[in-house]
Amino acid sequence: MSKPEIACWFDFASNYSYLSIMRLAQQDEVAVRWKPFLLGPIFKEQGWDNSPFVLQKNKGDYVWQDMPRQCAKYGLPWRQPTAFPRRSMLAARVALLGEAQPWMAGFCTRTMLANFAHDQDIGSEACIATILGELGLDAAAVLEAALSPDNKARLHARTDEAKALRIFGAPTFFVGPDMYWGNDRLDDALAQARIAGG
Amino acid sequence: MSKPEIACWFDFASNYSYLSIMRLAQQDEVAVRWKPFLLGPIFKEQGWDNSPFVLQKNKGDYVWQDMPRQCAKYGLPWRQPTAFPRRSMLAARVALLGEAQPWMAGFCTRTMLANFAHDQDIGSEACIATILGELGLDAAAVLEAALSPDNKARLHARTDEAKALRIFGAPTFFVGPDMYWGNDRLDDALAQARIAGG
Repeated sequence: MSKPEIACWFDFASNYSYLSIMRLAQQDEVAVRWKPFLLGPIFKEQGWDNSPFVLQKNKGDYVWQDMPRQCAKYGLPWRQPTAFPRRSMLAARVALLGEAQPWMAGFCTRTMLANFAHDQDIGSEACIATILGELGLDAAAVLEAALSPDNKARLHARTDEAKALRIFGAPTFFVGPDMYWGNDRLDDALAQARIAGG
Repeated sequence: MSKPEIACWFDFASNYSYLSIMRLAQQDEVAVRWKPFLLGPIFKEQGWDNSPFVLQKNKGDYVWQDMPRQCAKYGLPWRQPTAFPRRSMLAARVALLGEAQPWMAGFCTRTMLANFAHDQDIGSEACIATILGELGLDAAAVLEAALSPDNKARLHARTDEAKALRIFGAPTFFVGPDMYWGNDRLDDALAQARIAGG
């Protein structure tokens, strides 16, 4: 038996990605291939210059009613961010470096908590440096690597890969070729991963 | 103890409404206040001249992968409609007449099955008349009442009510003032109804 595997495509600015990242980090039955990417270019292709939760006011207002209920259901902390969506490019670039590192899950959960439980600006180098320091990493060195042209190109390629996979939102999960969109499909995707891996 | 109650706002053209209508009809622990309405005018207010599942091609194609999986999960039949979204105004007008009638749940489930399991044109009078006949009703009389100016005005008022409630999609549930959007929130809404009614 191989270990079940799921790919998780997410954006640190996405509140529903927050739910899934926390839930995936709390389990170890299914291996997670982390796929940080940027939703902005995906939305731009649909003609949107911002999150649909901003552009569609009724839906957006609903989301902020939905989130505390969802967080209560999953036992997760919640504070509505005073800025939304927050700039997630820096966090995504750091996460690209961490994908295969033991600190990846810790970085993702701490960054999500900073945004959605502690109302911190994850777009700032200071915030990300603090998180990296808490993980026992050399924050200056990681940030330098994250901001390198090579790594910038990698994030661009990752987001192109998301477009090629026809991803239209986040979080999005893949189990083999099968796409599952949204935190509401995480249980279905995990169940499918167990079948596929078992 | 009063019986728990939920309001279910739905459009017969909406595939995710299909799932919720069938699930609500299969339970009798929670009383359902049926609220047929038309999504089209809601979408128009957002600047859309069609379903987002048509306008957003990647999302739309995903939906047709998602639906058979969701139907399998809920034990519901499924055949992808050859036309989407189907004209639902006639069915909505009939349902307005049936809201407080014993045949309402039967009409709703049969019409949803016609659209999403039997690929029938629920926009046609013949299709709706057949369903009404199967329910033992005088189809001609019901259709005449459904098509009356008074009833047309009632559907218009219903859809205005949806706008006033800031509904942006279907299905949408209310438990008291609390809104729950989407079939994925039906369990949460039913749980809340039991708490509120208990």
